Amino acid sequence: MMLGWFVLLLRRATCCIKSNPFQINKQGTLPPLQSTSHQECNPEKSPPIPSDKEAFVTLVTNDSYSFGALVLGQSLRAVHTTRKLAIMITPLVSDNVREQLSKVYDDVHTVDVVDSGDTEKLALLSRPELGITFTKLHCWRLTNYTKAVFLDADTMVLRNVDDLFDKEELSAVPDIGWPDCFNSGVFVFRPSEDTYQALLQCATNTGSFDGGDQGLLNTFFSDWGTKDISRHLSFLYNMTSTIHYSYLPAFNRFGGDVKIVHFIGPIKPWHHQYDSRSGTVKPHPNQDSTLPPHHMDFLQAWWDVFMNRVKPLLEGQGQLLSGDHPGDTQDLTGQLAQLQVYGVESPAHVSSEDHRRAWERGEIDFTGLDRFENIQKKLDAQIKS
Amino acid sequence: MMLGWFVLLLRRATCCIKSNPFQINKQGTLPPLQSTSHQECNPEKSPPIPSDKEAFVTLVTNDSYSFGALVLGQSLRAVHTTRKLAIMITPLVSDNVREQLSKVYDDVHTVDVVDSGDTEKLALLSRPELGITFTKLHCWRLTNYTKAVFLDADTMVLRNVDDLFDKEELSAVPDIGWPDCFNSGVFVFRPSEDTYQALLQCATNTGSFDGGDQGLLNTFFSDWGTKDISRHLSFLYNMTSTIHYSYLPAFNRFGGDVKIVHFIGPIKPWHHQYDSRSGTVKPHPNQDSTLPPHHMDFLQAWWDVFMNRVKPLLEGQGQLLSGDHPGDTQDLTGQLAQLQVYGVESPAHVSSEDHRRAWERGEIDFTGLDRFENIQKKLDAQIKS
Repeated sequence: MMLGWFVLLLRRATCCIKSNPFQINKQGTLPPLQSTSHQECNPEKSPPIPSDKEAFVTLVTNDSYSFGALVLGQSLRAVHTTRKLAIMITPLVSDNVREQLSKVYDDVHTVDVVDSGDTEKLALLSRPELGITFTKLHCWRLTNYTKAVFLDADTMVLRNVDDLFDKEELSAVPDIGWPDCFNSGVFVFRPSEDTYQALLQCATNTGSFDGGDQGLLNTFFSDWGTKDISRHLSFLYNMTSTIHYSYLPAFNRFGGDVKIVHFIGPIKPWHHQYDSRSGTVKPHPNQDSTLPPHHMDFLQAWWDVFMNRVKPLLEGQGQLLSGDHPGDTQDLTGQLAQLQVYGVESPAHVSSEDHRRAWERGEIDFTGLDRFENIQKKLDAQIKS
Repeated sequence: MMLGWFVLLLRRATCCIKSNPFQINKQGTLPPLQSTSHQECNPEKSPPIPSDKEAFVTLVTNDSYSFGALVLGQSLRAVHTTRKLAIMITPLVSDNVREQLSKVYDDVHTVDVVDSGDTEKLALLSRPELGITFTKLHCWRLTNYTKAVFLDADTMVLRNVDDLFDKEELSAVPDIGWPDCFNSGVFVFRPSEDTYQALLQCATNTGSFDGGDQGLLNTFFSDWGTKDISRHLSFLYNMTSTIHYSYLPAFNRFGGDVKIVHFIGPIKPWHHQYDSRSGTVKPHPNQDSTLPPHHMDFLQAWWDVFMNRVKPLLEGQGQLLSGDHPGDTQDLTGQLAQLQVYGVESPAHVSSEDHRRAWERGEIDFTGLDRFENIQKKLDAQIKS
């Protein structure tokens, strides 16, 4: 089962994972992946040298997305990346969560676009809708790194992807909604203050055609589609999990090599219910019923990382043992509620296209649909034994 | 309205159409496109020299798809291509329809894979599911042309695309279902007997991972994704009309420049009902209700070409004035039925994924779901005054 393969991959990795071209058969199963040592992978090559000057970077704008970032970070650890892990957070992320993130990430940077320099303030004033975008742009300011790979917090790594550091700025994967554009969930870039300022200027002058960072970055790196094939990354590096699979034979043919899965859409893995007795994630009531079965496999893989590699970290601090069911580790949803998760609209109420789009851009309506009381109510409603 | 723009484009074209970067506004409207003379387009350039050695090529495997081919051919005429138009047909296409096609296409080639050479027969025996694929591969045998652009019969040209002949084999557009692969509905190629034989060999040895020509061609031209950016055509050259528009802002930003629209999916434009009194195409009862409004605009554009440029051709032969309503030009569906259309499953019964996929590959179940009696029944049911 693909489930078994992912579980094996993530639980038993002791070294690099040999990238074998598995082919998913008609039942959607894969042979178990054997983890190998570096020497077995490349008997003629020395083990890779860890690099302090290169990093995977992600962004969390609220506590909810921190679950994504924690799983992402631990998935990178599971495939034994030799690069640093860096994360940008906003002041909206609680101290509690920041502390958890610091256990997984080597660097935690707080970015506050409101309390920034004059240029940023002016940019924000002229383009207030780009608040979150401006936060993401700060990844170009991490100039302690010479090269970095940005990964959205709703992605998860399934194989070692350190080879991305052989690529140049701006390398990315085509967006399946408009493949002339790249999807900004995964990209290779070179931190640079000059580039940052130029991006800010572009945002101020031109804005973003989609109201978010993807439109802006595609405007700025407008020659991505036509200039250099080496900057087109394989879809395997940013495989959108919830696509309608209009080309299922290709997924069956190539999908066994998927390296990074991207949980696009308003319903994130951490919105699903999880039955800790059976160890299985449940489909979401609002989930598109036409989604292919392997979407559940990817969700299961996410939850396996969460349960095996994130939850123990969180429990180590003791805060998950308080609440309605002290010591009860079966009611995970209730425990998550204790983490003061806020900033997410229960997918049960994600109804309008506008709200979905805003949600995906990370524009959380903290005073409206997404306010904490609504979220708390929704989480309580999801509690099941 | 985009509708108005398409109508103006196709009805009033007198020469080349200036490719202006229109931006679709939030109401989905476009400014009217002004057709221009060659001199106005490129005042410094001489008019393009017609080329007899280069051609647009399409394929029709049954009378139903001939409607698509007729509209495609006439849309190419409407944008004043200077290249030849060639079409491959199978013996299943009736003489009547062949005659109509010859009015639009410069060359009509009958391809019969069953009555082919030994190599082809052997290939067909070993890979019987690839019957239609083998027919399509015959485009590489049109060696009277040095270069050609293949266009599926369910595409339609909205702007002059003769610039495709500046491209090399194999140039194509990424498939939105798996963008590491190209969509084989539009591609630039160089006819060659050697390439044809190599393709046949590949089909025999490897088969096709999707059971059709796209899987085979992507296997044969396996470096398309990584070798040469110039062989990646813009999405504007093969814009799938029925995609779920998961990136609508990009369509709004760039879609005004669309050059070729591709009506993928089992429901083709010619399956829709058309009200000739109001001049509007009707949504299909099985049509996905989440499709964006501009999909209807594209359907309308297709029907406008049919009504303005194809129907007059067909009526010129007199056969459309017989039947239930002699002289009645309002009941177009009835008239189409008189053309002995067969080989199409009424979309009302396209229910299974397998049938949809088979249908898209042109694998019509002539003795089963798609047999003539069923089709006749469905067409009769669609007749409305």
